[in-house]
Amino acid sequence: MINENLLGIIAGILTSISMLPQLIKVLKEKNVDDLSPVMLLTLIIGIALWVWYGVMKSEAPIIYSNSFAVLVNLCLLGSYLIYRKKE
Amino acid sequence: MINENLLGIIAGILTSISMLPQLIKVLKEKNVDDLSPVMLLTLIIGIALWVWYGVMKSEAPIIYSNSFAVLVNLCLLGSYLIYRKKE
Repeated sequence: MINENLLGIIAGILTSISMLPQLIKVLKEKNVDDLSPVMLLTLIIGIALWVWYGVMKSEAPIIYSNSFAVLVNLCLLGSYLIYRKKE
Repeated sequence: MINENLLGIIAGILTSISMLPQLIKVLKEKNVDDLSPVMLLTLIIGIALWVWYGVMKSEAPIIYSNSFAVLVNLCLLGSYLIYRKKE
């Protein structure tokens, strides 16, 4: 049991770390040309469902890592709404 | 039990769909300037650990969606190795 949780925690940390450079780049350069709001919404809904799945199964690593991913992608979506070029 | 699995399947389909545009764009434009090989490797290792976690817990939605994600990101890493600019 400890091993599975530890595995989930390490997996969650690695996948969380790998999301940050994109967010940092967008926040630094204020350039959101490469973001697709439709795909971001799809991703956010998908990850939110993973959080729900984790809650139903009482699996902490899934809940924490996907909650973090929801946050990161909400920041990306927020950045898109703020920085997109007004036509 | 059916509900949790269905939830996981829908979550997996949504997060999988949201990965495809980046891969399609890279394959179409053969432009990998925005890919970071270190972050791709971090991500691939992280997702592979999620597959392992899913196997240990016998959770099919986690196994399938993360296996798909490993494949997509291996394609991105392969594209990076093929298309990166030789200095």
